[in-house]
Amino acid sequence: QSSVSIYGIVDVGVTKQNGGTTPLSGGNGVTGPGGDKWDVRQAYASRLGFRGTEDLGGGLRAGFNMEMRFMPDTGAMQGTQAFFGRSVVTFGGSAGELIMGRDYLPAFYVAIAADPFSYNGIAQMGQLHTFPGYSAADGTGPVQAVRNDNQISYKSPSMGGFTTQVAYSPNEGSRGTLGRAVGGNVEYRAGALYAGVGFDQTRNNGTGHDPRLLVATMAYDFGGVRPILGYGRGRSALLDDSVDVSLGLNVTAGPGVIHALAARLNPPGDNNTLVKYGLGYEYFLSKRTSLYADVASAKKQALTTTTGFDTGVTLRF
Amino acid sequence: QSSVSIYGIVDVGVTKQNGGTTPLSGGNGVTGPGGDKWDVRQAYASRLGFRGTEDLGGGLRAGFNMEMRFMPDTGAMQGTQAFFGRSVVTFGGSAGELIMGRDYLPAFYVAIAADPFSYNGIAQMGQLHTFPGYSAADGTGPVQAVRNDNQISYKSPSMGGFTTQVAYSPNEGSRGTLGRAVGGNVEYRAGALYAGVGFDQTRNNGTGHDPRLLVATMAYDFGGVRPILGYGRGRSALLDDSVDVSLGLNVTAGPGVIHALAARLNPPGDNNTLVKYGLGYEYFLSKRTSLYADVASAKKQALTTTTGFDTGVTLRF
Amino acid sequence: QSSVSIYGIVDVGVTKQNGGTTPLSGGNGVTGPGGDKWDVRQAYASRLGFRGTEDLGGGLRAGFNMEMRFMPDTGAMQGTQAFFGRSVVTFGGSAGELIMGRDYLPAFYVAIAADPFSYNGIAQMGQLHTFPGYSAADGTGPVQAVRNDNQISYKSPSMGGFTTQVAYSPNEGSRGTLGRAVGGNVEYRAGALYAGVGFDQTRNNGTGHDPRLLVATMAYDFGGVRPILGYGRGRSALLDDSVDVSLGLNVTAGPGVIHALAARLNPPGDNNTLVKYGLGYEYFLSKRTSLYADVASAKKQALTTTTGFDTGVTLRF
Repeated sequence: QSSVSIYGIVDVGVTKQNGGTTPLSGGNGVTGPGGDKWDVRQAYASRLGFRGTEDLGGGLRAGFNMEMRFMPDTGAMQGTQAFFGRSVVTFGGSAGELIMGRDYLPAFYVAIAADPFSYNGIAQMGQLHTFPGYSAADGTGPVQAVRNDNQISYKSPSMGGFTTQVAYSPNEGSRGTLGRAVGGNVEYRAGALYAGVGFDQTRNNGTGHDPRLLVATMAYDFGGVRPILGYGRGRSALLDDSVDVSLGLNVTAGPGVIHALAARLNPPGDNNTLVKYGLGYEYFLSKRTSLYADVASAKKQALTTTTGFDTGVTLRF
Repeated sequence: QSSVSIYGIVDVGVTKQNGGTTPLSGGNGVTGPGGDKWDVRQAYASRLGFRGTEDLGGGLRAGFNMEMRFMPDTGAMQGTQAFFGRSVVTFGGSAGELIMGRDYLPAFYVAIAADPFSYNGIAQMGQLHTFPGYSAADGTGPVQAVRNDNQISYKSPSMGGFTTQVAYSPNEGSRGTLGRAVGGNVEYRAGALYAGVGFDQTRNNGTGHDPRLLVATMAYDFGGVRPILGYGRGRSALLDDSVDVSLGLNVTAGPGVIHALAARLNPPGDNNTLVKYGLGYEYFLSKRTSLYADVASAKKQALTTTTGFDTGVTLRF
Repeated sequence: QSSVSIYGIVDVGVTKQNGGTTPLSGGNGVTGPGGDKWDVRQAYASRLGFRGTEDLGGGLRAGFNMEMRFMPDTGAMQGTQAFFGRSVVTFGGSAGELIMGRDYLPAFYVAIAADPFSYNGIAQMGQLHTFPGYSAADGTGPVQAVRNDNQISYKSPSMGGFTTQVAYSPNEGSRGTLGRAVGGNVEYRAGALYAGVGFDQTRNNGTGHDPRLLVATMAYDFGGVRPILGYGRGRSALLDDSVDVSLGLNVTAGPGVIHALAARLNPPGDNNTLVKYGLGYEYFLSKRTSLYADVASAKKQALTTTTGFDTGVTLRF
């Protein structure tokens, strides 16, 4: 009678950085300079999820998805929530779907599509580059994450390759200085082509202007060689926009994929441009289990170069 | 070989109240005046549970039930426990069952039976009305919830329609000013008739008298029209009892149920009587999935009227 | 498609001690003098786990295991981690296995083999006796638990009855004054004989010497009567070793097992020797469900004797 299915990812690896002062974002759990030493970390965000869908007849369906995130090297939960990753009810049919609860911003799907590492491992673009200026990572404003609590969104069905999603989160007290958020995306998928545009805007309670974000991604698969162009522009408490441009590459190579990346983040002000390069290979031992190794290097003007390495194993179930 | 089954409820909805000063108890997660704005909330308490039973032969069986509660709008756990809802081992057979762990007070089952909304949504009676004076909701005493940690109870089999449950929780240090608790119920089910009486008594460490509760519920199903009479009397730190009387109604209407409610809570003292009215409809899209909409209004003497509304979707699995 | 399996143990019982001042270690959740009263507790550490293995072909396999620990009497999690019990990825084949994440020290397996109660219930040896001096339980040093975060270990296959495991945990910041840890074991199993030796050493940041542990266990099954000899020697902040010697006994008796124990812990210094006696019976109602009752008595020089009792039911799934 039970109709819940359990899924997840568990990933454990090791990482090492040199002692550079540039934060090597993402980075297998390491979000700042890690010092010159080995750490046990994860590249993929480990998770344990519960989901189900019910066909209600007449084209209607209802579903749920609760996803816990955790650190496999310590067993600790990510965040303070039981279901940091996602906690939603979905309801809809051929005319589209309502998604209600804790969920990703629509702009997130366009942002992660720009990252050839899909936000995994030390060489990833991550939120720092793909949400430029919109998080506090390179600004001084309130932190807007890639997910919102209390989000209600509508996601359209695919219409000639196009889908769109619009989302709203009311200003509930738990958001602190962040007020209500609105966001949306338009994505196009046709054969080898992907193109997407996303935006988000958060009310910044108590200051005169509102944080906002615009992201755009385009990719084309030339038969196993897939370049990705990424562009992002955003700001939080700062009056001027941060801008990120990136070129990514995924290349099918044997039973695996090569990921490569060059990204340049230009925050407001002088002498703080950040450039990151990343290269990695993920080798699939099976459809569900892979080994990976990544190298990354980042340099912010006025700081010293940080280089890092990670390797590990990822299991999906 | 594994014999655990997973079950749950996930519910997300929206709610809005006016700015009245009377607390609109229950209320889709809103426990006080919410101000004149929309919130994303839940009506049903969302949960994820694990349970199993083993037949030991000779009429004996053993079982377990651990139930996590969470807020789907944020993914946060309810309470600080992993298993806020229930965490018990059961052991017994034809002569009845021992239930050990974190569990509902016996009086809870009689109390929730008085609420035509079954403690769900903004129009519910909730603990405020069904445990009158026994929680701090309208008193100044220690908070006795509807569950106790460390409870050991015996639940009888049905004998001619009668069942009884008696429970004891020792005074372990984690209960603060609340000491050991004893409670019990007697319930009668015969055809269309339900009648139940429950009591609970908690030792109030350090003051001269002990919190206590008496609840009684009667309901009769006149072919789809089911009126419910509820009565409760209790006190915590106050020397006099709070008294609640209620009239509820459940009416089968199409593929759904109408819930209606009038409840009057009379705490000790003058000019603080609280009257609540509720009306709701739950529409079943399938056996497991329903849509609901509720309206409620409450007025406490000396405070202004609060009215509220909620609507959402509930999935069971 | 999902290949995760769920397993667990749930145990609830009651325990009572007299008011002796000697800490009755282990003890059904009671880690110190409990006073002269009844408590609802657990003997077996209750858990809910998720695990899976994938055959990768060519003799390779990958697996995962996340295990939550909780207190069934309150529903609370043990520790602050989601997966206090274990959180690992395993990877290997016929040449042995890498185990990465939060896991038991190799010495733990030898230590728990010395305890006829397997760390369960009030009469257990527990960490106090089996990790003598290595935890703060009888010393003043940093607390080294039986598990390490960030552990990477290699476990050999069985070679003529011998297996070995070696482990390393880097000095990540979360360990406080504890630095990197190294440990290992060698175990031999042949017919009725078990013999094992384990060691562990932790860098004690900021003091002049490092905590270290040596444990050895031997057991032989004389047809249902299985004596166990245990020896442990260790220290944390103290300059001298604590030494524990123990004699345990497991006797098959009807559909159950008798556990008996005498252990003597001799910390550095005078007049602080601790002697513990334990006796228990576990009665299996089925392969998965058992009833147990244990009595224990412990006396530390200069303190008064503590005696205690527990009884309860254990379910495995």
